[in-house]
Amino acid sequence: MKNEHITFHRGKVSRNDRFSVLGQKGVAVWMTGLSASGKSTIAVETEKILIGMGKAVYRIDGDNLRHGLNSDLGFSEKDRFENIRRAAEVCALFVDAGLIVLASFISPLASMRSLAREKTGDSFIEVYVKADVETCCKRDPKGLYKKARAGEIPDFTGVTAPYEVPPSPDLVLDTERYSIEDCARILADKILQFSALK
Amino acid sequence: MKNEHITFHRGKVSRNDRFSVLGQKGVAVWMTGLSASGKSTIAVETEKILIGMGKAVYRIDGDNLRHGLNSDLGFSEKDRFENIRRAAEVCALFVDAGLIVLASFISPLASMRSLAREKTGDSFIEVYVKADVETCCKRDPKGLYKKARAGEIPDFTGVTAPYEVPPSPDLVLDTERYSIEDCARILADKILQFSALK
Repeated sequence: MKNEHITFHRGKVSRNDRFSVLGQKGVAVWMTGLSASGKSTIAVETEKILIGMGKAVYRIDGDNLRHGLNSDLGFSEKDRFENIRRAAEVCALFVDAGLIVLASFISPLASMRSLAREKTGDSFIEVYVKADVETCCKRDPKGLYKKARAGEIPDFTGVTAPYEVPPSPDLVLDTERYSIEDCARILADKILQFSALK
Repeated sequence: MKNEHITFHRGKVSRNDRFSVLGQKGVAVWMTGLSASGKSTIAVETEKILIGMGKAVYRIDGDNLRHGLNSDLGFSEKDRFENIRRAAEVCALFVDAGLIVLASFISPLASMRSLAREKTGDSFIEVYVKADVETCCKRDPKGLYKKARAGEIPDFTGVTAPYEVPPSPDLVLDTERYSIEDCARILADKILQFSALK
């Protein structure tokens, strides 16, 4: 027996009722890019802009989820996919609740991003935070690239593991050309348009 | 290597900022009780009351989570605990985001409820939805008690697996004595008091 005795409890409140209460549609903003590309930093600034406008926003990332929900997962390929799957399921719940959820995950493989999109359907914005490996290596705020190049971290995206550039993201934020502040403003505008109630 | 290269990205938005936007404090309302005690039904009615008052509310339960986030879990003792752990972690995220989350889980063991409380800290209300096994057997809306008594469902709480009555819940809703509507009103009042901003 796995899920055969499970039935849904339909509510008396619809997704649209929740959206009306919050004055916005729920949306999952999935930010992909190399480590140190600027994903989480842009998310922090974007959250600040949106909260200042009275929007209901929440921010999750690979780092903080791994301290809680995903604390049982390691870094095997299987666990990396499971990390993304659970993050995407959490996004789907938040979107259903009516929130704007900013999710920053390296998610290096196209199949990981497809999985995430699949869970949230058409309430999903894929944002490619663009910076090449050389730039990220120079930034290296946590010293991870240095360790990866010294062979101390196995399978490090961009060094010893591939990053598949998204072929058709909904938005590209090029952090080599634009400031974090500019990227956050562009992203906030995109989100405001997307989450507006008709 | 497990989590040694993980650091938190502190935001520029605090939990209190999120609470101010929503006009409420986040709270996890954990509803425990036998199958057919009325947990999910009360949650549905309570959600309706609170949404009608403009509150930001979301509802999760063992059933709907098992179709998504917890779809990889079965019903072994280990998986039942993992089901509760993940539900509690999701509650903690929702509470941090500022929402009222109504979580209905049989959670038959005191240790499961302790685990859930541990994740959300002092933003947790334990609600015991009270109805004895005989009453639940008579209701049996899904025919599960009948199957359990016929030996078709192993380890069924109240029949072939124990339910540990909560010794000191924050609220008891006795569905043998009170109507669903009355229980929902009592619970909504409790939540409104608890989630009010000072």
